[in-house]
Amino acid sequence: MEITASMRILCDPMQAYDAFADPMKIGNFWFSASSQRWETGKTIGLTYLEYGASFDIQVLEAAPGEHIRYHWGEGADRRLCTLTFEEADGGTIVRVSESQWRRDKDNIAEMLKNQQGWVFMLTCLKAYLENGISTLRTGLMME
Amino acid sequence: MEITASMRILCDPMQAYDAFADPMKIGNFWFSASSQRWETGKTIGLTYLEYGASFDIQVLEAAPGEHIRYHWGEGADRRLCTLTFEEADGGTIVRVSESQWRRDKDNIAEMLKNQQGWVFMLTCLKAYLENGISTLRTGLMME
Repeated sequence: MEITASMRILCDPMQAYDAFADPMKIGNFWFSASSQRWETGKTIGLTYLEYGASFDIQVLEAAPGEHIRYHWGEGADRRLCTLTFEEADGGTIVRVSESQWRRDKDNIAEMLKNQQGWVFMLTCLKAYLENGISTLRTGLMME
Repeated sequence: MEITASMRILCDPMQAYDAFADPMKIGNFWFSASSQRWETGKTIGLTYLEYGASFDIQVLEAAPGEHIRYHWGEGADRRLCTLTFEEADGGTIVRVSESQWRRDKDNIAEMLKNQQGWVFMLTCLKAYLENGISTLRTGLMME
């Protein structure tokens, strides 16, 4: 199974792509720090200071303005994440998919938690790109 | 099982409560229309024009500044929703719970979809109450 989420944002695809790839921008809507620019083949260290999280991702493919594919997690918990950026009606649809989940009722709680994170991030991205607001990203409580 | 989500918002509990209860405010972050003020015992017609949704909820209890409990859905799909407003560190934690879900892998897709909706709504509420922004609420795509 996969977790998906999609957001329509009034910006062009390159702006949305760059918000993820540029380590100076990601702190406005998602992680507090990204170790370097996201490019194909690179390992990126991500930190979410406010949630006490820190880990690496492996960027499998980064196609500017089009899509990013990366792995995160280890072993049986390794997931493939895909971000796509599609121009539509003068805006951009940003789609997230996190795949390689087993379809299992014991997975439900963890899937719901990650689903929360994806939608929260995409909504914060919309507020950042459309309104210049970067203060939402610490509001979600992971209880 | 239940779906939950919690958001920390810089406002007082009464402001957060009123954003739901006052039909002039809800259109800034969630439904496009609410038929009347949310009060104990009332049936409220809700419309989400942009997502083609329209239905009634039954308000079981509305305690200003504290919590709201209501039913939505019919028959086996009837859920109990609880919104709570708790003052914390000069802000308010708004918690949502949607309960009465069967723990069943066939429910996963629908639970993930509703989880999306709750987090999206709470993030839009934060942007509305903290920044006066009411333009995020149509961005999430339910594909």
